[in-house]
Amino acid sequence: MALIEDLKWRHATKAYDPNKKVKEEDLQKILEAARLAPTSSGLQQFRILVLTNQEIKKQLSAHVLNPEVMVDCSHVLVFAAWDRYTEERIDSIYDRTTDERELPRGRFSSYTDKIKSIYLPQTAEENFVHTARQSYIGFGMAIAQAAELRIDSTPAEGFDNAKVDEVLGLASKGLKSVTLLYLGYRDAEKDWLASMKKVRNTMEEFAIYIK
Amino acid sequence: MALIEDLKWRHATKAYDPNKKVKEEDLQKILEAARLAPTSSGLQQFRILVLTNQEIKKQLSAHVLNPEVMVDCSHVLVFAAWDRYTEERIDSIYDRTTDERELPRGRFSSYTDKIKSIYLPQTAEENFVHTARQSYIGFGMAIAQAAELRIDSTPAEGFDNAKVDEVLGLASKGLKSVTLLYLGYRDAEKDWLASMKKVRNTMEEFAIYIK
Repeated sequence: MALIEDLKWRHATKAYDPNKKVKEEDLQKILEAARLAPTSSGLQQFRILVLTNQEIKKQLSAHVLNPEVMVDCSHVLVFAAWDRYTEERIDSIYDRTTDERELPRGRFSSYTDKIKSIYLPQTAEENFVHTARQSYIGFGMAIAQAAELRIDSTPAEGFDNAKVDEVLGLASKGLKSVTLLYLGYRDAEKDWLASMKKVRNTMEEFAIYIK
Repeated sequence: MALIEDLKWRHATKAYDPNKKVKEEDLQKILEAARLAPTSSGLQQFRILVLTNQEIKKQLSAHVLNPEVMVDCSHVLVFAAWDRYTEERIDSIYDRTTDERELPRGRFSSYTDKIKSIYLPQTAEENFVHTARQSYIGFGMAIAQAAELRIDSTPAEGFDNAKVDEVLGLASKGLKSVTLLYLGYRDAEKDWLASMKKVRNTMEEFAIYIK
């Protein structure tokens, strides 16, 4: 199906049927779309945590804006970005890249030196502003892939990031949570947004032509 | 075509054929995919500036990392986000939403009051961290839509944002540049990345299952 039709179909689902689960092969496609997303300098600064355990979902739901959505959905994806750049992280990606392309390691060293000179002197907070941004591209790809499969989803930013990080032990993984994506199948009766018109700025307002 | 196949097909194009232009109807589809992208609270905190004028592209190219890519590509899309939240901006979106849904204005006022209580006390810089993030979802959708159409693109963050803002007069529009997306058709001989393998973290590294 065409992307535009998929995007018209989707909406931020407000209620899930707790008895309908996303199939494993569909989950893998959603993760794969996010994995293939481009990132700045190809550094893949984010990971996805996959949650289905009801006990953990309930525990986590105390820290989110729509706890019942988290509890009732099939899968919770937690998009989490690097808490900071390190020389090791940057080198590790580029060593793999050169290895897989059968190029000598260090082939891109003038480029990685430049990246390092930009990011390593920054604070961890400044780094995270940048790494978190990258995760939104993959977040978008996952939303689009779910829609292509006609799986409902809810992108969510409304949660206590520090608490989610703590429950999931993200600090020890060098990650910080950015966004949540709930996946599943809507409860058509309770999902009040499902029947409402999608509203956007007009194209005339959205696109500005520089002549 | 399936999104995953589109994402496997695409790469960050490094050289464009200056004689091949993106058709207007294809450009409109790319803009439409970005326009339909979800944003936090539905606020649509970003716009796209569309540039084809060679004189302006040349002028702007002095401030970007890969000037020849900007000059040779068919279209430059500048993703620009709100420089800050204002009560008026938030109300304007929600007035339109209620109008188009034939609901009374103010129907979502408890929600918009909450949004305002979060964002309005923040500094403009803190606001922009959030508005800029939203633009990355639409950025991803535009990249995916270009790939679906087999149009080459180059996502780019490497530029002097302040200079680009100045050349395009973004301050007077209440916007700040975030990313660039070059569109066009590759110059297969000069595009050194075209023949190289796409490298990503393995799925085992990328997806972390919380049991």
